[in-house]
Amino acid sequence: MAGTNNAELNRDGTLPPGPVVVLVDPQMGENIGAAARAMLNCGLQDLRLVRPRDGWPNARAQAMSSGALDRMPEVRVYETTADAVADCHFVAATTARPREQVKEVHTPRTIVPVLSERIAAGNRVAILFGAERTGLENDDIALSRAVITVPLNPGFSSLNLAQAVLTVSYEWRMQCVGVCPAELHRGDSLPVPHHLLEEFLCRLEGELDTHHFFRTPEMRPAMVRNIRNMFTRADLTDQEVRTLHGIVTALTGGKKSKSGY
Amino acid sequence: MAGTNNAELNRDGTLPPGPVVVLVDPQMGENIGAAARAMLNCGLQDLRLVRPRDGWPNARAQAMSSGALDRMPEVRVYETTADAVADCHFVAATTARPREQVKEVHTPRTIVPVLSERIAAGNRVAILFGAERTGLENDDIALSRAVITVPLNPGFSSLNLAQAVLTVSYEWRMQCVGVCPAELHRGDSLPVPHHLLEEFLCRLEGELDTHHFFRTPEMRPAMVRNIRNMFTRADLTDQEVRTLHGIVTALTGGKKSKSGY
Repeated sequence: MAGTNNAELNRDGTLPPGPVVVLVDPQMGENIGAAARAMLNCGLQDLRLVRPRDGWPNARAQAMSSGALDRMPEVRVYETTADAVADCHFVAATTARPREQVKEVHTPRTIVPVLSERIAAGNRVAILFGAERTGLENDDIALSRAVITVPLNPGFSSLNLAQAVLTVSYEWRMQCVGVCPAELHRGDSLPVPHHLLEEFLCRLEGELDTHHFFRTPEMRPAMVRNIRNMFTRADLTDQEVRTLHGIVTALTGGKKSKSGY
Repeated sequence: MAGTNNAELNRDGTLPPGPVVVLVDPQMGENIGAAARAMLNCGLQDLRLVRPRDGWPNARAQAMSSGALDRMPEVRVYETTADAVADCHFVAATTARPREQVKEVHTPRTIVPVLSERIAAGNRVAILFGAERTGLENDDIALSRAVITVPLNPGFSSLNLAQAVLTVSYEWRMQCVGVCPAELHRGDSLPVPHHLLEEFLCRLEGELDTHHFFRTPEMRPAMVRNIRNMFTRADLTDQEVRTLHGIVTALTGGKKSKSGY
């Protein structure tokens, strides 16, 4: 695929380092294209093919890549797996089944720190993926330093080739972006300062008193607590509190709060 | 899809609980089938569709699912997103773009403990995925309690629908299987006891002395250390040490070791 290397993925314009992805004996162009898309989604760009069944370039791969192949460096094609990884210092093989070979067995999650350490040390690392139905040959596994197995549902563990590429690429990406804790997205809105929330709650409680919401004085404290909990838990913004004031104003017949809401 | 619920994914024969996956306005049957396959790969089985463009059942979905649709409970089809999640207690929306709505924003990795806690508490949880090109509508996001965003390459962040389903399903699965540390797979072979490794190394060093491998006595200690390091690092099995003895025997013209290797 005569793609041009025009991707600018790092802010400084350099290509991000990352594992090389090697597809050995891939059959369907669609899977090659989908794998390329998944790679670039995750910032990986060095795709190599060993004996692609339908030759290369491949129009179906191109279509399924959704533009990824045009934005990645040119895909390289090799006659043997050994040729494809000739310049690599560490090779890992993805396989669903443990084989009768003595190897470190990783998940996509545990291999990433290993790859990362290697890359930081200046090594080039490669991950092998086998053919759609048959997986990697034992000889390909033998030339690998480690095996990667995705711990899938044992009752239905056959993963699509591009999906397999995604699991490793995704783990790589997650490690690159670091720990992303959950956050509250507020757009341009600010969280409300407590005094404005308090002002609203007091107003609401006053209106509820006025409208005889609390059946008995004994029930009032617990009910007020429940109402306050509800609005506090919602972690409101300034704008949302203004909206709530507007709702109270509307429901009470247009009588604005003392603050003019 | 008139699938039969014949999957036996838990050892006790029960279905594993897990998030419901809701595809809203999915266009291509292929993506629905690939999503189903990714779900079942990860042990998820409750797939719901809102207004699938090409109707349901769908032959292309069936083909792309590689048998997953036949092994999952029947896929249910709904007219609206609200209908699809009517029985759910917690809904999360996947979207690539932060929207102008105040929401908790999660990655697939951070949402899983939230879903897990909900499920443990007896809640049913659902994850919404939007149409291939356009994603979810704002109204679908508004009915969700949280947003899930995969932190992809900002220069190429458009993820295939089935790949998006895989990221969340995979994280669910990884959490279900727990921490899987890297391990060394040895098949039936045992790691070699140290004394057998030592015996081999002494034999090798003796043969190297005999064959004048060490040019000077001064160099010998450092070279021996290097050789020992190399073989020790390989974390050999019994069988591999026997093989190495065989190699030495062969290379030295058939002279077996004292131990008879």
